[in-house]
Amino acid sequence: VTPNDMLTRVDTLETPVPIVDLAVVEHNLAKMQGYADAHGLRLRPHIKTHKLPMFAQRQLALGAVGITCQKLGEAEVMADAGLDDILISFPLIGPIKAARLAALARRVAHLRVVADSVAGLDTVAQAAREAGRDIGVLIEFDSGNRRTGVTSVAEALELAEAARARGLRCDGLMTYPAGPEAAAFIAGVKAGAKAGGEFAIISAGGTPNAWRMHEIPGITEMRVGTYIYNDRTMVGFGGASLDECALHVHATVVSRPTATRGIIDAGSKTLSSDQLPPGLGVGYGLLLEYPDAIIERVNEEHGMLDLSACARRPEIGERVRIVPNHVCVVTNLHDEIVLARGGVVDAIVSVAARGRTR
Amino acid sequence: VTPNDMLTRVDTLETPVPIVDLAVVEHNLAKMQGYADAHGLRLRPHIKTHKLPMFAQRQLALGAVGITCQKLGEAEVMADAGLDDILISFPLIGPIKAARLAALARRVAHLRVVADSVAGLDTVAQAAREAGRDIGVLIEFDSGNRRTGVTSVAEALELAEAARARGLRCDGLMTYPAGPEAAAFIAGVKAGAKAGGEFAIISAGGTPNAWRMHEIPGITEMRVGTYIYNDRTMVGFGGASLDECALHVHATVVSRPTATRGIIDAGSKTLSSDQLPPGLGVGYGLLLEYPDAIIERVNEEHGMLDLSACARRPEIGERVRIVPNHVCVVTNLHDEIVLARGGVVDAIVSVAARGRTR
Repeated sequence: VTPNDMLTRVDTLETPVPIVDLAVVEHNLAKMQGYADAHGLRLRPHIKTHKLPMFAQRQLALGAVGITCQKLGEAEVMADAGLDDILISFPLIGPIKAARLAALARRVAHLRVVADSVAGLDTVAQAAREAGRDIGVLIEFDSGNRRTGVTSVAEALELAEAARARGLRCDGLMTYPAGPEAAAFIAGVKAGAKAGGEFAIISAGGTPNAWRMHEIPGITEMRVGTYIYNDRTMVGFGGASLDECALHVHATVVSRPTATRGIIDAGSKTLSSDQLPPGLGVGYGLLLEYPDAIIERVNEEHGMLDLSACARRPEIGERVRIVPNHVCVVTNLHDEIVLARGGVVDAIVSVAARGRTR
Repeated sequence: VTPNDMLTRVDTLETPVPIVDLAVVEHNLAKMQGYADAHGLRLRPHIKTHKLPMFAQRQLALGAVGITCQKLGEAEVMADAGLDDILISFPLIGPIKAARLAALARRVAHLRVVADSVAGLDTVAQAAREAGRDIGVLIEFDSGNRRTGVTSVAEALELAEAARARGLRCDGLMTYPAGPEAAAFIAGVKAGAKAGGEFAIISAGGTPNAWRMHEIPGITEMRVGTYIYNDRTMVGFGGASLDECALHVHATVVSRPTATRGIIDAGSKTLSSDQLPPGLGVGYGLLLEYPDAIIERVNEEHGMLDLSACARRPEIGERVRIVPNHVCVVTNLHDEIVLARGGVVDAIVSVAARGRTR
């Protein structure tokens, strides 16, 4: 037992600082794995939220079948830590990506990449050839989000054919998030598929709608990331409660120029300038101690508080805890993150896969 | 002379990647220093845009009187590189900041900090005592931006008095940006000042209005940062031309799901989600090759292009160059930045003061 006076309380740390409550993390991980297990869905967490090998390993220990990474650089960090079942959920295009993917394939036992074009398939095929390894492909389709992904069943089937022609294994379909068109699209592709083992994996992503994924016929795998920490957007969508938000940014009120205005030392460099989706609320984060305050504007280092609606108002030097709008971008802004239990620092860890834009 | 085949062209680098043209940087630095010199203003560049000691040193070599840093962590990086005249332009509050400021004061010959409250003065006074060194204070005032800064001449004079009572040197006033109320405020404080040497420095910031700072009576020092690289906001405000934008993000088109939609591999993790100020335009950056394309939405890794208005449209695999909306936040998102001359890589440097949120 560590004597009490050796413990560092999180509320004594210099601000601004992102602090993760490990008990909440453990609750969130167990809850999602429980949901996946209850509905016979395979869980393949997206590491973009935590960017930490230790949490990826914890997710596997709880029952996850592997991980999802958005970028090669993230996958490389995870491979360095021994993760050996990885889906890269962003299209890779061109010879530089092919060479990196080949190097990754040599050391990751189970590697898959999404593609929504022939150019994407060519990149994966080149990497597989270079590495002398199998790399599975998931065809990405658009189920209503208007981002990447083919927009018709015919295109998906053509790409599966093109994959086959390139000696690639077409393992399935992938979409983000699981929008209204998902079920019909999946059924259409299944009906049109030729080979027996093709399209065995139907992968859908997104934490907000995670708890209803079992309602979409055909989905076999969930890619979810935000659920480990949750955030104000997730609470707004009803996918998490405020108590399930594991990451708080601790900040300090540094200025009170007028009766209704306050400034905190957390701006867009700490919270990002991500706003809430339309209809979910205003401001750049929720102040737990002053829920009626609005972070109405952020500059890089300044967060401007509108305190008009607050009965009680914070003084200069006072600390506040902020639930960010979008937690994935917050972890990407910080070199280190504090892990805590019961308000006491457990560890300060480097966010290993932070800043991996490539 | 390096043989031609030893050179790395920037358009062969893996994307997404931020690339800075050194000739444009040199032009921008010389132009601003020329403006300051022509009007007898002292230039104290803000390093928040470049975050690189080498550029801070270049700014000094061209005539800058010192540098401005927003955070202690940035100032520490610059002090490590030998910079010895630093203004910290963000209020420091509390004992942890005082201890760090004291350590900094022991190794920086000329150190000043802004304050807009008694708590801020107390922090500086504690640091000065601990270090046994002088630390100058600038009183921050609000000239219309509604951020930090006292809002009346009386408050400014009271803080000067409070500084004196704490044994601190009140060197002047500071505001950001130089808004409409600046001239009257400066005149009011000058008229009310007691001691002779007080308020010798009147410091105003902000690149957009930099070229008109000489029109505001009383200003002695300019704090400008963005001018070294410039960005779409600066062009929108008329403070720079497109040719004066030194940093381009090179990206690749990775998907073309429909005739009018394209996806690039640069989203909010590369460009940030900072939008343009109202009235200056739409989207998350300007594509130089496709100026009619709109980056209408960004997710962390995806930039969604609306190509409806484009006569010609990019294919998958095509590279594009993007002028970001706000360049300061872009440099903060990247561990490394590429410096180039004539489209050829000159150096790849670590963004030394990136991520210094504290």
